[in-house]
Amino acid sequence: MVDILHRIGVTSAPDDVYMALTTVDGLAHWWTQDTDGDSEVGGVIRFRFEPGGFDIKVLEARPAERVLWEVVDGPEEWIGTRIRFDLKREDGYTIVLFRHEGWKEPVEFMYHCSTKWATFLMSLKSLVETGKGEPAPHDVRISNWH
Amino acid sequence: MVDILHRIGVTSAPDDVYMALTTVDGLAHWWTQDTDGDSEVGGVIRFRFEPGGFDIKVLEARPAERVLWEVVDGPEEWIGTRIRFDLKREDGYTIVLFRHEGWKEPVEFMYHCSTKWATFLMSLKSLVETGKGEPAPHDVRISNWH
Repeated sequence: MVDILHRIGVTSAPDDVYMALTTVDGLAHWWTQDTDGDSEVGGVIRFRFEPGGFDIKVLEARPAERVLWEVVDGPEEWIGTRIRFDLKREDGYTIVLFRHEGWKEPVEFMYHCSTKWATFLMSLKSLVETGKGEPAPHDVRISNWH
Repeated sequence: MVDILHRIGVTSAPDDVYMALTTVDGLAHWWTQDTDGDSEVGGVIRFRFEPGGFDIKVLEARPAERVLWEVVDGPEEWIGTRIRFDLKREDGYTIVLFRHEGWKEPVEFMYHCSTKWATFLMSLKSLVETGKGEPAPHDVRISNWH
């Protein structure tokens, strides 16, 4: 099992980051505009991108502390993986420790997703700090795989 | 052992990416301006940042194909780790598969370095495509850890 790890610091309160991770409107403003579904614990959120997308079940949502998802549909490599956002306060920043865990193999798609996650987390940071993120289809293009 | 993985695509020839990975001048324009040393195979390159830096030995350099480094000095978590850039041509892009491997534990610093590597690889892409990267100290700030 191999994981994708990232860490960003947002100069805003944990509650603001939490809102961007736990509401359809928040998620649509940093990850992909084509987001809908039920963002409550037990619900499934549908994220769509030009080439496809992901259905993700919310396993846990602890205000200003942690959000945990499980991928229930999407590319084969993603199904069954978990995505976790742990929040904490440090030096006036809300630190987001991100982990996309449970990849079976470090396939080339995982390399791609790791870099894309970094750019989307920077989009999350930008959204919460300035009100403007870069969600798909206006996301940062990193390669031929988009 | 856990690894940091990334994938970017550069709209330039593999030779141009290779130059940016194997010359002090190239490296200084996307990773850190404070770079010196010997970038030939067997040589040691010194990379310095505001809070410290890394000494890296060049283990392998195959034109337009692969660059492999070993970290010989720097933060404890980095010493002995290896950094590898594999290049290939695909759809008119030079694909860079990046792997920073051999971390002993997925410590919080590794989360940070993963996101920083993504921003530095985007700096490499920008340098080769446009002539302008974002090397330290003008690098993208991602958190309280810089």
